[in-house]
Amino acid sequence: MSPSSQFVPAERILLGPGPSPVPQRVLRAMAAPTLGHLDPQYLAIMDDACEKLRQVFRTRNALTFPVSGTGMAGMECVAVNLIEPGDEVIVCVNGVFGSRMKDVMERCGATVHALEATWGDVFTLDQIRTTLERHPKTKLVGIVHAETSTGAHQPLEGLAELVHGHGALLVVDAVTSLGGHELRVDDWGIDAIYSGTQKCLSCPPGLSPVSFGDRALARFDARKTKPQSWYLDVSMLRKYYTGGGGGRVYHHTAPINMTYALHEALAIVLEEGLDARIARHAAMHQRLRAGLEAMGIRYVPARSLATLNCIHIPAGADDAGVRRRLLEEYGIEIGAGLGPMAGKAWRIGLMGHGSSVRNVDLVLAALRTVLR
Amino acid sequence: MSPSSQFVPAERILLGPGPSPVPQRVLRAMAAPTLGHLDPQYLAIMDDACEKLRQVFRTRNALTFPVSGTGMAGMECVAVNLIEPGDEVIVCVNGVFGSRMKDVMERCGATVHALEATWGDVFTLDQIRTTLERHPKTKLVGIVHAETSTGAHQPLEGLAELVHGHGALLVVDAVTSLGGHELRVDDWGIDAIYSGTQKCLSCPPGLSPVSFGDRALARFDARKTKPQSWYLDVSMLRKYYTGGGGGRVYHHTAPINMTYALHEALAIVLEEGLDARIARHAAMHQRLRAGLEAMGIRYVPARSLATLNCIHIPAGADDAGVRRRLLEEYGIEIGAGLGPMAGKAWRIGLMGHGSSVRNVDLVLAALRTVLR
Repeated sequence: MSPSSQFVPAERILLGPGPSPVPQRVLRAMAAPTLGHLDPQYLAIMDDACEKLRQVFRTRNALTFPVSGTGMAGMECVAVNLIEPGDEVIVCVNGVFGSRMKDVMERCGATVHALEATWGDVFTLDQIRTTLERHPKTKLVGIVHAETSTGAHQPLEGLAELVHGHGALLVVDAVTSLGGHELRVDDWGIDAIYSGTQKCLSCPPGLSPVSFGDRALARFDARKTKPQSWYLDVSMLRKYYTGGGGGRVYHHTAPINMTYALHEALAIVLEEGLDARIARHAAMHQRLRAGLEAMGIRYVPARSLATLNCIHIPAGADDAGVRRRLLEEYGIEIGAGLGPMAGKAWRIGLMGHGSSVRNVDLVLAALRTVLR
Repeated sequence: MSPSSQFVPAERILLGPGPSPVPQRVLRAMAAPTLGHLDPQYLAIMDDACEKLRQVFRTRNALTFPVSGTGMAGMECVAVNLIEPGDEVIVCVNGVFGSRMKDVMERCGATVHALEATWGDVFTLDQIRTTLERHPKTKLVGIVHAETSTGAHQPLEGLAELVHGHGALLVVDAVTSLGGHELRVDDWGIDAIYSGTQKCLSCPPGLSPVSFGDRALARFDARKTKPQSWYLDVSMLRKYYTGGGGGRVYHHTAPINMTYALHEALAIVLEEGLDARIARHAAMHQRLRAGLEAMGIRYVPARSLATLNCIHIPAGADDAGVRRRLLEEYGIEIGAGLGPMAGKAWRIGLMGHGSSVRNVDLVLAALRTVLR
């Protein structure tokens, strides 16, 4: 044994676009001894993690489970299962993650009609209705609930009725909203949704919670072709995740210890209560916003997320220099601008365990010092 | 905080087909505080993990990194990047994982010529030569080094010369051999290879080490189409994993804590030394084999892996009953037969940390008792 090989990371305060700070309880749960992926004890905790995920998604969808990959694997899982080559789909693009959804769906062979909006803006029902009317063969509409690149918060109420009225499925990217914003999969009629563990659930990155509703699975069952990904094919994944009893069939080796971590992170979410947790995220956002605006700093989006605060870099401030000083002097990580926002915006995440009075007041104090 | 939510798994001895037992050092490393995926400290440990992977693969391939998914994601990563629709490939099928490689490559649009052998057998150079001669347009030959479903150990020496002589790439599945068997990526001319962390590296499942050589990357760079997977597209992954300095570009949020675990697991492998580790796996296999054969138990493959011992279930023994008693009375997990071997074979893994005198003697004692 070589003690010197032990890696001791600095104690960062993670206020970027994710990962968010992970509670000790979650880290400890993750370090429990590894079980086999077909061990009855493991299957029990995995099933319980899926049940907790249903509660956090506010859904009764049987096929709700963590994909064995990070958030983008969840996006790809939804796309490869619901799209067949030649399908027409609409993707709402107002930031990096909408653009990426377009790219992912094109790689599935879809003809993507991009509905574009200025970065930072959100979409209205009217815009989406017009696009659906223009493309009557649309099979699926993809939209980002929480656009991590701009901080824009997309309203979703009423959208499913519109989309279903045109015979299409509604697919939602909830990577930066699940566990931090109001999100009602069943009430809002969402057909398929994916998220990440490292944002408002405050679990390390490595899993991507997804949920497929009945309409989505009916579409899947009517496929004429195999999904292009074996790893993400839900026909096999559902035999492992929802097979139960004798019907449980091995697909791939699940990431055991990550499941322990997710299980514990979800327990923490449910102990706090979803409503209380969402209210905390809203209050901490208001507290940060008041402090930033008092410093003359402006937000990029008109309708900001509570979980991710995307702000214009103040005139004269040195982008990389400020972020480096925050990291080196305070151990605080905030996010740089992404894509076309690089050099123009900062992203301050207040997600999950990180969304606290202590962190808000510290980052404000640090910014006041560093920007002086 | 609700202490009752803490999950306390039983102390299993994992002697199945993986996951293998994870050393305390690795579990502890994994539980270190989460860093951001662009934090200089994280990038340093990630780079060091990749360097250690090169040593374990015995390669100087720059593009050597852990895919953010379990072993099958590694297989898919190699396939989606090296295959374009319409490509002809040869896959050697003598078990579940060869069959799966065929399926994965077909989903990439390949025309797969399957070279089949009886389960438990391995392939000769002559068989592969004949198949290459029959299919002169073959662009890639895929073969499994360690067939986890049958325990067969495929020799690879001399194969690359043959495959390259026909203008094809050599792709190797080393999920159950990396870190437990002799494996020389550069000396053996392997063009692309994938493995898993939860076998002979004794790290929890969740990452899939891969390595791409120059010939494979030249093939990738000559593609006319985008890889069908965004998540696994090496054109972007290599900017993150090998970008270095200012060229480092964010792709997806890497599974930070899993990287800590892999880094520590690889440190343990290199402290022991690859040659010593391989010799230990060979010696423990011989010790187990002698004990099993003394009980009249026969091996399935003629040329067995040291890391996975696939044996015929003795006449009259109750498959599920024996495995359940081993689990309940001894806490020992062994593997059931997979696919057509279900009900006919057991699989005893002696991988990484699990390959010890203590475990061999215990499983032999337990089997003697349970089979009495």
